[in-house]
Amino acid sequence: MSYETAIAVDELPTSARPLLAALDIGGTKIAGGLVDADGTLLHHVQRPTPAREDARTVLAAVEAVLDELALHPLWATVRAVGIGSAGPVDIEAGTVSPVNIPVWRAFPLRARVGAHPAVRELPVVLGGDAIAMTAAEHWRGAARPYRNALCLVVSTGVGAGLIIDGRLHTGRTGNAGHLGHISVDFTGRPCPCGSRGCLEGLASGTAIARTAAEAGWQPANGDGSATAVAESALAGDPLALHAFDRAARALAAGIAATATLVEIEAAVIGGGVAKAGELLLGPLRRHLDAYAALPFAAHTLVVPAQLGTDAGLIGAAALARPALRAAAPATT
Amino acid sequence: MSYETAIAVDELPTSARPLLAALDIGGTKIAGGLVDADGTLLHHVQRPTPAREDARTVLAAVEAVLDELALHPLWATVRAVGIGSAGPVDIEAGTVSPVNIPVWRAFPLRARVGAHPAVRELPVVLGGDAIAMTAAEHWRGAARPYRNALCLVVSTGVGAGLIIDGRLHTGRTGNAGHLGHISVDFTGRPCPCGSRGCLEGLASGTAIARTAAEAGWQPANGDGSATAVAESALAGDPLALHAFDRAARALAAGIAATATLVEIEAAVIGGGVAKAGELLLGPLRRHLDAYAALPFAAHTLVVPAQLGTDAGLIGAAALARPALRAAAPATT
Repeated sequence: MSYETAIAVDELPTSARPLLAALDIGGTKIAGGLVDADGTLLHHVQRPTPAREDARTVLAAVEAVLDELALHPLWATVRAVGIGSAGPVDIEAGTVSPVNIPVWRAFPLRARVGAHPAVRELPVVLGGDAIAMTAAEHWRGAARPYRNALCLVVSTGVGAGLIIDGRLHTGRTGNAGHLGHISVDFTGRPCPCGSRGCLEGLASGTAIARTAAEAGWQPANGDGSATAVAESALAGDPLALHAFDRAARALAAGIAATATLVEIEAAVIGGGVAKAGELLLGPLRRHLDAYAALPFAAHTLVVPAQLGTDAGLIGAAALARPALRAAAPATT
Repeated sequence: MSYETAIAVDELPTSARPLLAALDIGGTKIAGGLVDADGTLLHHVQRPTPAREDARTVLAAVEAVLDELALHPLWATVRAVGIGSAGPVDIEAGTVSPVNIPVWRAFPLRARVGAHPAVRELPVVLGGDAIAMTAAEHWRGAARPYRNALCLVVSTGVGAGLIIDGRLHTGRTGNAGHLGHISVDFTGRPCPCGSRGCLEGLASGTAIARTAAEAGWQPANGDGSATAVAESALAGDPLALHAFDRAARALAAGIAATATLVEIEAAVIGGGVAKAGELLLGPLRRHLDAYAALPFAAHTLVVPAQLGTDAGLIGAAALARPALRAAAPATT
């Protein structure tokens, strides 16, 4: 955002260009941003997550991000705050229990953010990070053309969210669309969640690296990561190709299950593993043709996500849009 | 329905007690009924489905059911017609392609019913039979207390429908909730639909009989049906018990997938195989505890369906309720 823009905005009545504040809370970083009513990220700040410290210290990092955001000249125009948090979340209770922030269990994040001095008068909306990404891709990204879509984040884990009948489907507690923990192999490997054969255990980056290693793939220079498997696959290594194919097959089964259960037009694929591009999406489309064979589920499109790392903040803002409309009905 | 009721109704202005006509179309029988605004089935008729004859002959059987219904003194109070048909259906196009009526492919059932002389002025609403059963259980049966539920029919096949946010979720083409063809065993046995490891191939009555036979179970008097397996299991036969346990485990994985994807409070189980009662529901609840382990999916209730064979007609009528309201807004 340029200084000129800020000046121009300052000359308008504050209610004329309402903004959304966004928080994106993960196990590695806590990001904050200011997003306008068109979904453009105008400004952002971030800090590392002190995930191994105590609950109060993690909250202090969130408060520091809010302090910093609130110094921005446009803060006065913020009308609502959206939070996208690593899950599980409970949007009814306003709490979060992120797998990768073990010191927060049923932590009252919505209330604590709402108690920050700069936020006190504003509505605060909480959601899960995959649901936020879904909201972002539907608002400004690859899911925009579709009334029914699944948006996936394939990285160290597998998260997802659903758009049904043109609206974000959060479920009562805010965890709907949690595709990483549906079983596509009901007699398969036990999952830490308690189930068996969960999609995440077959299709995440971690799983791809494990499948390759179990098949006998040898990392060239000690790097056994999914990124190294991807490089090896691009060079034609059949064991590395097998690892991507198996992940793609499991993802196809999960996307087909979603298409069969709720009817979707498209699956939007984002996250670190999706950066492998056609190495993943090629076999995924091929397997999806087989798993989604019934006429009403066939032809589900597979498209790459568009918003990259900005999806977290734009999506958190998207969650707060209904509150924005409620807060300032005359300006939109 | 008694004659006295008909007389009493005839004395009211016809608009005061609007009725719904219902058609339930399956591979074995075609049923028709009159259903009141409270979901009570007042009258019904039925004929065998001439499923091996030509398309015109099957339609003639539907028309004969309508002819017979239209002779009823209450027909004049019918305000809308609902059709629940064996699927797949296409509610956008108004066509059906029932697996078990092979002579109907993309058959324009909605238009043909609408062209019947007794129907011509009435709105006609088409849906799939499992979705109709779901609508019935949500209107008058076991799903009534829930805003989010899955209703299953476990019989020779496995069908299902979804209630999301208190409303029937049909999907664009009317096939949403088709749980029988999600894969819970992505490297498993090929399914006639083109996919692999579909729930129907693991949990239907046909599958239970096959699992028992493959495990070495011997029918006592040549009857290898799921009903015979159930009797044998109730008598303690471990191979027969294994067949039900495996079906229950696959159903649990499918219900858990639904709970994880859309968040549901309950799964309502109906259909012929569900008549085995606790023989199926006991292991199903136990396995569901394992497969639906995440906090937001745990505690999904498993309850038996309440409406039995009437669910088809009551459900077909339920599909037409919105048309009833639109047709006679002043009377409800």
